[in-house]
Amino acid sequence: MTLTIDPDRLWQSIMAIAAIGPTPDGGSCRLALTAEDAAARTLFRQWCAPLDLHFEQDAIGNMFLRREGSDPAAGAVALGSHLDTVPTGGRFDGVFGVLAGLEVLRALHDKGWRTRTPLELVNWTNEEGSRFRPAMMGSRVFAGDMELETALAITDDAGVSVAQALKDSGQAGPLTPSQRGWACWLEAHIEQGPVLEATATDIGIVTETMHARYFQLTIIGEPSHVGPTAMDRRRDSLAAAAETILAVERVALAAEPNGRASATWIENYPNARGNVSNITRLHCDVRHNRPDRTIAMEAALREALAGIAARRQLRIDIDPYASFGPVVFDTALGALLRRKAEDRQLSTCDMIAAAGHDSVLIAKLCPSAMLFVPSVDGITHNPKEYSTKEQVARGAQVLLDAVMELAA
Amino acid sequence: MTLTIDPDRLWQSIMAIAAIGPTPDGGSCRLALTAEDAAARTLFRQWCAPLDLHFEQDAIGNMFLRREGSDPAAGAVALGSHLDTVPTGGRFDGVFGVLAGLEVLRALHDKGWRTRTPLELVNWTNEEGSRFRPAMMGSRVFAGDMELETALAITDDAGVSVAQALKDSGQAGPLTPSQRGWACWLEAHIEQGPVLEATATDIGIVTETMHARYFQLTIIGEPSHVGPTAMDRRRDSLAAAAETILAVERVALAAEPNGRASATWIENYPNARGNVSNITRLHCDVRHNRPDRTIAMEAALREALAGIAARRQLRIDIDPYASFGPVVFDTALGALLRRKAEDRQLSTCDMIAAAGHDSVLIAKLCPSAMLFVPSVDGITHNPKEYSTKEQVARGAQVLLDAVMELAA
Repeated sequence: MTLTIDPDRLWQSIMAIAAIGPTPDGGSCRLALTAEDAAARTLFRQWCAPLDLHFEQDAIGNMFLRREGSDPAAGAVALGSHLDTVPTGGRFDGVFGVLAGLEVLRALHDKGWRTRTPLELVNWTNEEGSRFRPAMMGSRVFAGDMELETALAITDDAGVSVAQALKDSGQAGPLTPSQRGWACWLEAHIEQGPVLEATATDIGIVTETMHARYFQLTIIGEPSHVGPTAMDRRRDSLAAAAETILAVERVALAAEPNGRASATWIENYPNARGNVSNITRLHCDVRHNRPDRTIAMEAALREALAGIAARRQLRIDIDPYASFGPVVFDTALGALLRRKAEDRQLSTCDMIAAAGHDSVLIAKLCPSAMLFVPSVDGITHNPKEYSTKEQVARGAQVLLDAVMELAA
Repeated sequence: MTLTIDPDRLWQSIMAIAAIGPTPDGGSCRLALTAEDAAARTLFRQWCAPLDLHFEQDAIGNMFLRREGSDPAAGAVALGSHLDTVPTGGRFDGVFGVLAGLEVLRALHDKGWRTRTPLELVNWTNEEGSRFRPAMMGSRVFAGDMELETALAITDDAGVSVAQALKDSGQAGPLTPSQRGWACWLEAHIEQGPVLEATATDIGIVTETMHARYFQLTIIGEPSHVGPTAMDRRRDSLAAAAETILAVERVALAAEPNGRASATWIENYPNARGNVSNITRLHCDVRHNRPDRTIAMEAALREALAGIAARRQLRIDIDPYASFGPVVFDTALGALLRRKAEDRQLSTCDMIAAAGHDSVLIAKLCPSAMLFVPSVDGITHNPKEYSTKEQVARGAQVLLDAVMELAA
């Protein structure tokens, strides 16, 4: 017995979510736990209502929609991703995984197909980490990688805490975030890179992820006046940050092709036009698929920072506040996804995920796997982010086929 | 006839203003047209009340306190500076000039001394330009260097306009900003540099100012994902900004000892930890006492920017939105200040002002001059900014002596 997903319904659902928090250039902006994120969650729940699912929500806002199976003792096959986006978000990152899971449940419901195991569809809170750092916050707390209380106390740049944002957006559920006895976890996602398109491959089987380390740097110099202060008397934190950003870039270039390093977020004080800056904060990360290389990249960065601090006579505090991976996904689940793709005459290749995903955390709890569909031009976190209707439909179909075997 | 200023009263006044908008480290933060700035203005007016001064305020918030002379036909001798500070402000920058002027009027009032010409004491709005760019806004509008309507429409980083801030702080006066028939203008200020201290000189006679040009840069790249986006596919506006900041620094180093260049203010978008940045705004300035060198510094900077934009495949828009100087101050007034200092057995030297001052604008309207008192360690725009009670008293005394001759 095989069931077929409905490509039009999947596509229309993706476009309907994209219309919440639209950006002028065709993308979406739904930062975690904003009104836009809450509106997308509400629409998602409305779609789930006719499917006879049991809804539960935990204290970090993760949403669980459970479909019971015929065997009350069986662990659930879980699937999903996230509905939040970055500020320059596209329409597919995260959303595709949640709605591919929804499409699986809709296809089963259409035919009244009862699985043996329960199924759980999940929307994880704050995967992107744009508003509240670190990324993958909901799955991180769920997996026990971060204390709930720690996460709730984290604030955004405006000083609003996660606890307050959960309350304001109506997403603070009663459950203690913890493992729900899942048998396994599957996540469909867009590739976010150019490989599948370049190699004309339909489905990427993610076998492992990079190892990433996140750093919050605080550079402390000395305020002074831009006019009369001679260059050799300055202890300019913004100039030191500039050197740091370029040092991060050099670390990345030396680690190609499988390494990346990025400086992305900056906060400067006093950020006044008549002032040499004295406090600059910077966020950066280093990542590589080989953990020893990630560590070496971090060491190179730390050495560069020590040189900058010494030369410019200022202090650089380094807070390595979070990390993810490396994770090797479950080989049996990966093989199942590959076989299901091949059964549909779809081409596959094995891939290393460079980005963080909720699956990185869930892999600590149960056998987990991810599949990728192509991203046009490899562009994501950008309004131009695009996958075709056929591409996303193929991914959802493989997901459905795998779920039917796993849950049978 | 000579009169003597009261060093204790001057010092206590400076400390009382410093207590408005205090920072934990002993400095002051009174950004233009905030509640703190308004409170300092109110206290200043209270001090003026017993001195029989006529108060007027113009539409950009400049405050004028006029003391009539015996000759109704004579133009006023005007003096003053500004009460606003940068975010990391000290206790003397600007404040000293206003309160030295107040001390002159108090000393005259104490003895009931009537001058021939009127005197006007002025507090200029938003000299610092930290909240609203450009700097010297009040004197700039007064001098006709900027249209009032243009200034009123300028917004701070939170989107509040100058017009709104004037209204909210109760500082929108009825007068059209324009020349008030002054005979001359004098401004006392702290040096903001190390020269007077290093040479054990009491009073600096400012003979000219540097020529400065201010630039707002907008760097436009392309958003992408920090994980999967290879380094050679990135068009990272923050990395381009980092190169720009260091290019500004190199331009400055090549222009020493009389040139300065600074990058001070940055705004980054989306400033999200998972995103390669795509829009970064930067403020910088170049300045030199020789205008041809300032122009050459600008040319070097533009060449560097063109290279950065071409190499990184992004756009850099350059808005040279304001400038000041070069100004050569009135030599007769400078000679008077020098003579009055020497009459008090004070040492003097001629100086070039590297910072912008309201006097730069007022010099367009009438003969103008500035005197400097020493800054300990040359540190300003910093809570550590300091001049001794004796140093500021000497400056105020020279100001009083000069005013008595000019207004006799």
